[in-house]
Amino acid sequence: MLIVADENIPLLDSFFGDIGDIRRVPGRSMNAEDVRDADILLVRSVTRVGRELLEGSRVRFVGTATIGTDHVDVDWLREQGIYFSAAPGCNANSVAEYVLSTLSLYAERKGLADWCDLSVGIVGVGNVGGQLASMLGRLGFEVRLCDPPREAQEAGQSGEFVSLAEALECDVVTLHTPLTRSSEHATYHMIGASALAALTSDQLLINSGRGEVVDGAALKQRLSAGDAPLVALDVWEREPRIEPDLVDLVWQATPHIAGYSLEGKVQGTEMVYRALSQFLGLPVRKKAGQFLPEPPLNKVSFTGSVEEGQAIRIALRSCYDPRQDDARLRLAMKGSLEERAEAFDRLRRDYPVRRECSSLKVQLKGSSRSLQDKFRAIGFKLKI
Amino acid sequence: MLIVADENIPLLDSFFGDIGDIRRVPGRSMNAEDVRDADILLVRSVTRVGRELLEGSRVRFVGTATIGTDHVDVDWLREQGIYFSAAPGCNANSVAEYVLSTLSLYAERKGLADWCDLSVGIVGVGNVGGQLASMLGRLGFEVRLCDPPREAQEAGQSGEFVSLAEALECDVVTLHTPLTRSSEHATYHMIGASALAALTSDQLLINSGRGEVVDGAALKQRLSAGDAPLVALDVWEREPRIEPDLVDLVWQATPHIAGYSLEGKVQGTEMVYRALSQFLGLPVRKKAGQFLPEPPLNKVSFTGSVEEGQAIRIALRSCYDPRQDDARLRLAMKGSLEERAEAFDRLRRDYPVRRECSSLKVQLKGSSRSLQDKFRAIGFKLKI
Ligand SMILES: NC(=O)c1ccc[n+]([C@@H]2O[C@H](COP(=O)([O-])OP(=O)(O)OC[C@H]3O[C@@H](n4cnc5c(N)ncnc54)[C@H](O)[C@@H]3O)[C@@H](O)[C@H]2O)c1
Ligand SMILES: NC(=O)c1ccc[n+]([C@@H]2O[C@H](COP(=O)([O-])OP(=O)(O)OC[C@H]3O[C@@H](n4cnc5c(N)ncnc54)[C@H](O)[C@@H]3O)[C@@H](O)[C@H]2O)c1
Repeated sequence: MLIVADENIPLLDSFFGDIGDIRRVPGRSMNAEDVRDADILLVRSVTRVGRELLEGSRVRFVGTATIGTDHVDVDWLREQGIYFSAAPGCNANSVAEYVLSTLSLYAERKGLADWCDLSVGIVGVGNVGGQLASMLGRLGFEVRLCDPPREAQEAGQSGEFVSLAEALECDVVTLHTPLTRSSEHATYHMIGASALAALTSDQLLINSGRGEVVDGAALKQRLSAGDAPLVALDVWEREPRIEPDLVDLVWQATPHIAGYSLEGKVQGTEMVYRALSQFLGLPVRKKAGQFLPEPPLNKVSFTGSVEEGQAIRIALRSCYDPRQDDARLRLAMKGSLEERAEAFDRLRRDYPVRRECSSLKVQLKGSSRSLQDKFRAIGFKLKI
Repeated sequence: MLIVADENIPLLDSFFGDIGDIRRVPGRSMNAEDVRDADILLVRSVTRVGRELLEGSRVRFVGTATIGTDHVDVDWLREQGIYFSAAPGCNANSVAEYVLSTLSLYAERKGLADWCDLSVGIVGVGNVGGQLASMLGRLGFEVRLCDPPREAQEAGQSGEFVSLAEALECDVVTLHTPLTRSSEHATYHMIGASALAALTSDQLLINSGRGEVVDGAALKQRLSAGDAPLVALDVWEREPRIEPDLVDLVWQATPHIAGYSLEGKVQGTEMVYRALSQFLGLPVRKKAGQFLPEPPLNKVSFTGSVEEGQAIRIALRSCYDPRQDDARLRLAMKGSLEERAEAFDRLRRDYPVRRECSSLKVQLKGSSRSLQDKFRAIGFKLKI
């Protein structure tokens, strides 16, 4: 059995080495020639998958180790009877950790002794928003969920949803919707002049969903006026050709890396491996965890004298502090439009290894039950 | 033997309990009545010590657990044959750690892979500047020392000193001089319009010496012009009535707390204890270290995969990250002049317990010799 795979998918050998022969190909230049004699095709978001690539090939299974499927002509695959699988939610936890770190920095800036005093409106409650909501709930935050498509579908079945206007009343509003232009609840420029006018300088708006959900021009205007909210953007309109003026105006600016933890990437491979195993009728014996390298920082030990806020702050930021990514992006906003665009892409391509909180052992001596629960809620490995 | 002491001196009992009876008095309201029958007087900077307080008392030894002696009439004590002792340098290491953390943040902001690429000009090379110079030297920074009074005194004996103009050429210029108004090398407004004009946007100016060494009006003007340097101020003109506009304009603003580690405070007590023991002919048996409480964070463990810069950044900032103090001061700059002044004082009075790097065990598995040396240079407790 021949597996043709994008060479940048992590842990190809570990997961697929004993299923078939692996032919590694650069994802961007992958063509019909490369895949003609393949049985299995594994891609990332840089390869367009459809008739042009696959017509006349032997491929029976296509897997993409990414949450997005825009690069795949799913309908054509279905017509051809080619099985298709993606990795929805593989980096949801990574994004949730980005939001948590951002909340911790924001609480510090506001001088809050307890970050839970922030109410958080989550707009878009799918894989990412759902994971975030569950963490925040366990941590004791007041959370409001806004997801009209889910609300319509689940009418009456699940917890309460709020309107966008109600979500916009929270201290922090964080966006986790896809980009849609034509559906009933289209998200394109959903946060425009009128939503932005509702926000005050006592609020924080975070967008790590898709850049075009926020109207950049309206945002620039809002941020130049008095009483403007703070804004943290991980996603931008027209990436990688993003607006340097907007970078200057926002409080925190990062280059679409919220989901870029190593765990998130490796979980993408694992999800495709599971789907393929099922497709082939093979047992699922491998887990991403067993292949993850030792993390750079593997343990922090607190004593009974630590304050809850201090302990969480230190542990969380030791794993991920978005200010490093912020500094890098601001430095990259020099030169011509094309130079800036290249720099944006380079920051993403050469992103340093980032590990999730689950990679860090936290030792708590004589600490309260409540602190232990909080560390668990974030996903740290607890040693008591 | 009766010891009268400012009630806010830490560890009074531990150090002095077996030397004499201790009478605790609020430092600000201490008067002649309180000290008349005392043999020993122990103060902090809030008590004026001279004829008015001590005439007619039995006091033979005065100790101040502070580096400053402005509150003590040293000449009068000498005339009366009263022995006097202060605690010079007790918080030098605390200030050096504040500067190190600030350098680490600045290197990140500049996108430097290695913070040692920064050259550092130290102006004023006494207890604080000297401690900082020795740390930075061991860490591999290029350091220039500027101290005209020492240069004149030590002519030819010690290493090379540079002029202020040469120090101002470094990537980072950090001020550690006292405030003097009349001597040959008076420091009052030493950094004025012309020195500030020499600095560019590629440089950082840090002042944690005395506020009036920098001309605040000139600084405000310089920071409002193009190509302004970044500035980190821990000390301010007219404390606690500091200029809120200046807080807005500087990159990092902290409320005169660079020296406020617990270790620094306790070492002040220890130095006075040593002097008193010597004065009384008693053996010196106690050390500050034995009385320090367990630190909130007591250990971090890195593996062989950690990068030097990452490891140092995490360990240093876990002990002390000046951005928390910066956030608190900015929040305090609201209300009337008097409200702001009170808030400034309150931030200092209610300062949270801060521990020095020496309180943190750092475990390094399979790391390079070079990284070990660097952790040692900063003062961490190394476990290999
Ligand atoms: N920044 C990053 O690095 C990063 C990483 C992962 C995902 N993302 C992005 O985050 C977004 C969410 O990802 P996901 O995996 O959770 O997707 P998902 O499909 O699991 O969830 C999206 C949710 O948004 C809801 N939604 C749709 N329209 C809405 C509207 N108008 N108002 C409110 N809710 C609406 C949907 O009902 C759904 O529940 C995607 O756009 C994805 O590309 C970004
Ligand atoms: N921010 C804080 O929390 C904090 C903490 C400790 C000390 N300090 C301040 O830092 C300063 C230094 O403290 P220290 O204990 O090192 O004092 P120190 O007396 O040991 O050293 C001061 C040095 O400055 C030099 N100096 C004097 N005039 C100079 C000039 N014109 N140019 C260059 N150098 C000059 C002196 O020769 C001396 O070597 C003091 O003003 C002290 O009050 C602040």
